Amino acid sequence: MNLDFQKSDGLVTAVIQDHATGRVLMVGYMNEEAFRLTVETGFATFYSRSRRKLWLKGESSGHRLVVKEISTDCDLDAVLVKVEALGPGVCHEGYQSCFFRRLENGQWTVTDERTYDPATVYQSSSTSTTESVQSRDSVQSRDQRERSGAKQ
Amino acid sequence: MNLDFQKSDGLVTAVIQDHATGRVLMVGYMNEEAFRLTVETGFATFYSRSRRKLWLKGESSGHRLVVKEISTDCDLDAVLVKVEALGPGVCHEGYQSCFFRRLENGQWTVTDERTYDPATVYQSSSTSTTESVQSRDSVQSRDQRERSGAKQ
Repeated sequence: MNLDFQKSDGLVTAVIQDHATGRVLMVGYMNEEAFRLTVETGFATFYSRSRRKLWLKGESSGHRLVVKEISTDCDLDAVLVKVEALGPGVCHEGYQSCFFRRLENGQWTVTDERTYDPATVYQSSSTSTTESVQSRDSVQSRDQRERSGAKQ
Repeated sequence: MNLDFQKSDGLVTAVIQDHATGRVLMVGYMNEEAFRLTVETGFATFYSRSRRKLWLKGESSGHRLVVKEISTDCDLDAVLVKVEALGPGVCHEGYQSCFFRRLENGQWTVTDERTYDPATVYQSSSTSTTESVQSRDSVQSRDQRERSGAKQ
């Protein structure tokens, strides 16, 4: 019984949830290789739709996601990955969760406080030379791209 | 500040989470109209990719999702909807959550018990005439389609 990677152009949706608090931290996408690496390495690995390559979450920030449990849904085209999030936050904008804005009276309102300074975290790793896990495209800067969005 | 419906062919990913327990119940997709209806009616409404029409979750089963809180992520292309799930289960296969299979030793293993009998629930509503909220396609049977997958 395999995941259905065909329904969405070779990808499954990956919901990342903190295994201890239950908070949903981010949503990403995995192709078959990203899913395999996630299982084999124990670190959540995604497929970046914009970069068209694998993306080890935390490769530049150090904020890796340690896999604790993986579930799939009835259609086998989404996975729920419970993780231990290393570091103060998953979101590249400096928040614990990418879901830091809540709909209040028809407006998206920031309801969280930042847990780290993204400028410091990403600046410090901008000279890193390892672009990504099994990168298929070494031209683009991983750090630059990761700054542009935790979910791509 | 609006959601970004353009990144994924007019859709945003919608993660549905039980507001009381924190359990992730399902993943669906919303177009702009489905999102608007979700906000305005207070019941989670999706866009069915296979049927290409709006889909009020629970329209046939009665297992509606009452919206408690909506968040969005840094990229504004995914929403997290915390809900109160009416009825014994969200999954059309009879489970509380669509994520009822866990990866164990490389195999997807059913780790939940059924909370209701889907044959009974969907059979009883198969003669319903109201197909969907603002259905754009009244030919297909909603019940038949809903049986084929909670997330379409």
